[in-house]
Amino acid sequence: MTVGTGTAPKLGILAGGGTLPGMLAAAARGAGRGVFMVAFEGHTDPAAVTGFPHLWSRFGAAGTVIDRLKREGVGELVFAGPVRRPTLGELMPDWRTAKFIARIGTRAFGDDGLLRAIARELEGEGFRVVGLHEILRDLVTPAGPVGRLTPDAQARVDIARGVEVARGLGALDVGQGAVVQQGIVLAVEAVEGTDAMLARCAGLARTGAGGVLVKTRKPQQDRRLDLPAIGTDTVRNAHAAGLRGIAVQAGGSLIIDRAGVAAEADRLGLFVVGVEVPE
Amino acid sequence: MTVGTGTAPKLGILAGGGTLPGMLAAAARGAGRGVFMVAFEGHTDPAAVTGFPHLWSRFGAAGTVIDRLKREGVGELVFAGPVRRPTLGELMPDWRTAKFIARIGTRAFGDDGLLRAIARELEGEGFRVVGLHEILRDLVTPAGPVGRLTPDAQARVDIARGVEVARGLGALDVGQGAVVQQGIVLAVEAVEGTDAMLARCAGLARTGAGGVLVKTRKPQQDRRLDLPAIGTDTVRNAHAAGLRGIAVQAGGSLIIDRAGVAAEADRLGLFVVGVEVPE
Repeated sequence: MTVGTGTAPKLGILAGGGTLPGMLAAAARGAGRGVFMVAFEGHTDPAAVTGFPHLWSRFGAAGTVIDRLKREGVGELVFAGPVRRPTLGELMPDWRTAKFIARIGTRAFGDDGLLRAIARELEGEGFRVVGLHEILRDLVTPAGPVGRLTPDAQARVDIARGVEVARGLGALDVGQGAVVQQGIVLAVEAVEGTDAMLARCAGLARTGAGGVLVKTRKPQQDRRLDLPAIGTDTVRNAHAAGLRGIAVQAGGSLIIDRAGVAAEADRLGLFVVGVEVPE
Repeated sequence: MTVGTGTAPKLGILAGGGTLPGMLAAAARGAGRGVFMVAFEGHTDPAAVTGFPHLWSRFGAAGTVIDRLKREGVGELVFAGPVRRPTLGELMPDWRTAKFIARIGTRAFGDDGLLRAIARELEGEGFRVVGLHEILRDLVTPAGPVGRLTPDAQARVDIARGVEVARGLGALDVGQGAVVQQGIVLAVEAVEGTDAMLARCAGLARTGAGGVLVKTRKPQQDRRLDLPAIGTDTVRNAHAAGLRGIAVQAGGSLIIDRAGVAAEADRLGLFVVGVEVPE
């Protein structure tokens, strides 16, 4: 993996769910870089932080987290992995969190605009917020097929429609994914996540050529935050849902374990393709 | 119910699912109007056509349907009730259907643009296509509360966000519904339908004040076709999903059995409100 140089400042990882935070920590350490992880109760997989210096916290405890990151000498921060967005009522905000919420207003709350506000706040505290794609450059989706198969004419039409829908949904700051089969939009993604969306597609699919999963980044979203991601599980779930392939935005999404994704796609007979999306 | 006058031409009802086609047929007959129904295999509830002259057909058999409607002396046609959109592969088109598909192109297929193309085609055959809201005027959602309860400040914020999302989704020609809780878009609707969308919200809901279901019509959609609708089932399903209320577009949606909806909403403690949406 390509990572920052050994002279880079200590990296703080705000760890969401899944394996990404652990991969990132291992890669940064492998490149000789100091790492400190913040794990969130109910979101972070404990396995992801095992073996790395870390703090367990809850979302509402911004004061504790910021103080600790400063004490650890963290210079750069990165968001890694999905989090289930909390409501204001779930937060039990500490003093610093409450001040932050008062400043951004509760209307922005629950919106992905929230992530941008958090990033700005952390930069105001003296941290540099960097994107995952700047640290793990090999994760960024390339243009063209990943694996052996490529989309046929019908699949290309479905991909074009899926890009239109996923981008439109992203512009509304709702989600990043859609499933299209023979021109019919079977499903669009909100907070349930891609795997849950795929799970319901099996029951919605029409006969004939299967559909495609399309994921694009939100056009207005800061590239350092919340890039859409797929992995080998996504390929298996897409196959189980009767889909023929997956299209993700080249340069605007992440493929976790690209070799594994290619192998799984080849084994199951799916295409996985990076598509250029005009921004 | 308000219906057309007894001197109106015979009404052909293209019957989708649910109780709406039967209600429409009964109301038209009650007003002394001749009725002929077209039921679609796998879509129309047999109970809806019982007692009315009708033809069972499949979607791909446009030739048979059009010939029969002419022979029955039908002058006006109305689409009533939802249909599961078929793919080209499922259609097995007869000669007239195939000509139609060749003319509109398979790219429009599966899209709601399809409905508009079908309406144009039927008008080309000499029928007048009318909207359900022109025949059953009492079904059209009024502005303001239906029932006793009204949305509070948080619910009004959620409704505003829901209108934005549902309209945006409609402009993409995808769906007409969204569920928003405390600013978080829990779910957006594609082909699964409102009841299936509500069913998954229970597992996605956050603690605290419950969410709202919002349904608006697609901005570009012909008002005669596919207006969003709610009924007593929608109220019960929204309650089961932990929602606090339902907002539907005033003048741009249908409430089936308004008195029943009001009573059920009052009983379960939900608001149901017609909201004005700038077009």
